[in-house]
Amino acid sequence: MSKQQKVAIIGLGSMGYGMAKSLVAGGHQTHGFDINSDQVARFQGEGGAPGDLMTIVGAVDALVVVVLNAAQTEAVLFGDDGAVLQMKPGSVVMACATVPPAFARDMAARCAAYGVHYLDAPISGGSVKAAQGKLSIMAAGTAEAFAAAASVLDATAEKVFVLGAAAGVGSAMKAVNQLLAGVHIAAMAEAMTFGMTQGVSPEKFVEVIPECAGTSWMLENRAPHIVAGDYTPHSSVNIWPKDLGIVLDIAEEAGFDAPVTQAALAQFVEAAAQGLGGEDDAAVAKVYAGQVGVTLPGE
Amino acid sequence: MSKQQKVAIIGLGSMGYGMAKSLVAGGHQTHGFDINSDQVARFQGEGGAPGDLMTIVGAVDALVVVVLNAAQTEAVLFGDDGAVLQMKPGSVVMACATVPPAFARDMAARCAAYGVHYLDAPISGGSVKAAQGKLSIMAAGTAEAFAAAASVLDATAEKVFVLGAAAGVGSAMKAVNQLLAGVHIAAMAEAMTFGMTQGVSPEKFVEVIPECAGTSWMLENRAPHIVAGDYTPHSSVNIWPKDLGIVLDIAEEAGFDAPVTQAALAQFVEAAAQGLGGEDDAAVAKVYAGQVGVTLPGE
Repeated sequence: MSKQQKVAIIGLGSMGYGMAKSLVAGGHQTHGFDINSDQVARFQGEGGAPGDLMTIVGAVDALVVVVLNAAQTEAVLFGDDGAVLQMKPGSVVMACATVPPAFARDMAARCAAYGVHYLDAPISGGSVKAAQGKLSIMAAGTAEAFAAAASVLDATAEKVFVLGAAAGVGSAMKAVNQLLAGVHIAAMAEAMTFGMTQGVSPEKFVEVIPECAGTSWMLENRAPHIVAGDYTPHSSVNIWPKDLGIVLDIAEEAGFDAPVTQAALAQFVEAAAQGLGGEDDAAVAKVYAGQVGVTLPGE
Repeated sequence: MSKQQKVAIIGLGSMGYGMAKSLVAGGHQTHGFDINSDQVARFQGEGGAPGDLMTIVGAVDALVVVVLNAAQTEAVLFGDDGAVLQMKPGSVVMACATVPPAFARDMAARCAAYGVHYLDAPISGGSVKAAQGKLSIMAAGTAEAFAAAASVLDATAEKVFVLGAAAGVGSAMKAVNQLLAGVHIAAMAEAMTFGMTQGVSPEKFVEVIPECAGTSWMLENRAPHIVAGDYTPHSSVNIWPKDLGIVLDIAEEAGFDAPVTQAALAQFVEAAAQGLGGEDDAAVAKVYAGQVGVTLPGE
């Protein structure tokens, strides 16, 4: 179904690396780039194609951008040596960072001026699914953008939500999802440590709550990390000041009050301030535990 | 497995009525009581046994208390005409209201002084499951209390979580569950209305988010009510100022800060203040929608 394409992917962090490997597995000639040259070398050792970005980007069918935020996305696309200026008409930028919807609309318009399609394509699912080519992608863009990105979507996604014909709605849905995911992690931490003050052990919590109306996807995924005392960062605390910050910036611009999100954000900011930023985001429970003086498993 | 018993049930609201019907279906001689005499008559027309509480309570094997809160539970058990004073030694009180753990411990001790067992047994699952005899029950109490309540549990519950040998832990787990459930409803409302300001329709929200990491049991259950514009109260806004209030009272006594819960509570309090207390709890979305000026389906 997919035809073999020439693809460049920028950003070989845990998500981007998995997507890059999935593109290789999908038979695409895949050039990987990252500010960390060790990651680039590692990828080239695992099937990645060599070459300098500026010498190959004029020939790619698709440029996949899996960087941290809007500023990095803009720098890649339109900064010094802006990639879009070299791209051929009819090629596509697939932009995967969590960014404000208005930023996505602006990028799409600027790409269009060069005849380059833009797919607003935030990703969800975590590094394990990225490596399996089974991400969920919340995509919005023109029919031409979807068509130009079809092979890349086939190789990297299990589920593509087609959210609209104009860039921005993908990023909006991602922001909605991140609002919920961040709040649910903080709520899980709040509920688990509250329970500990009342004689409910973390083990009992994880046994009972997933069977009850109080459960969430994040609770079922993250609460076991606390029970295991394992804060290996599958997704780190530092993600949330960034992503909930984006949510609140967008909300403020729309005149929308998001008090539950604000409360959750404050807990992640406090966790980062306590030096937990690089730990798994379930470590936000340590903020609560420290405040009330209960001892989490493994502490 | 269950032997036929003589049971009194106090409180024939939507949960209690369903439990009462399940007890009848389970073959038990079931006497139902409520301050609403119409409910009592209705139940007697559907297989309930007749009689005045004070004349039958001395003969019951189990007294099931499904009232609103701790104050009503205490009034039933130890107020004027306190039921426990008439109950026979070896019988059991099964207390289903959401109450503070310390209250449950106190009730258990006071019942013990009369030779009456006390099962701390908050219920979860909603009125539909109550009517099917398929509740989840978060139970704590002595082995004798569990044994004395076994037939009632068989008739009313699909799942009984045995949380400990001392009353209080059942109520603690219920408080933990309510914290999460209340926060998740408010977060759903916040996320859905935030999305509406960014071009994400409620319909798209309900289509996409249940497939993503941002989902929760409450979101999947309640968000469709908003899409349908149907605020028939399966569980009303008014539940949450009560239940999250109990959570925060318990938390305060333990010196525990619960900022995410506080933020969610404030939204339900505002909803009640806006006259939405009797509507389905998904109506908390109207607080957000009104603040930012988006129009929910059916409004």
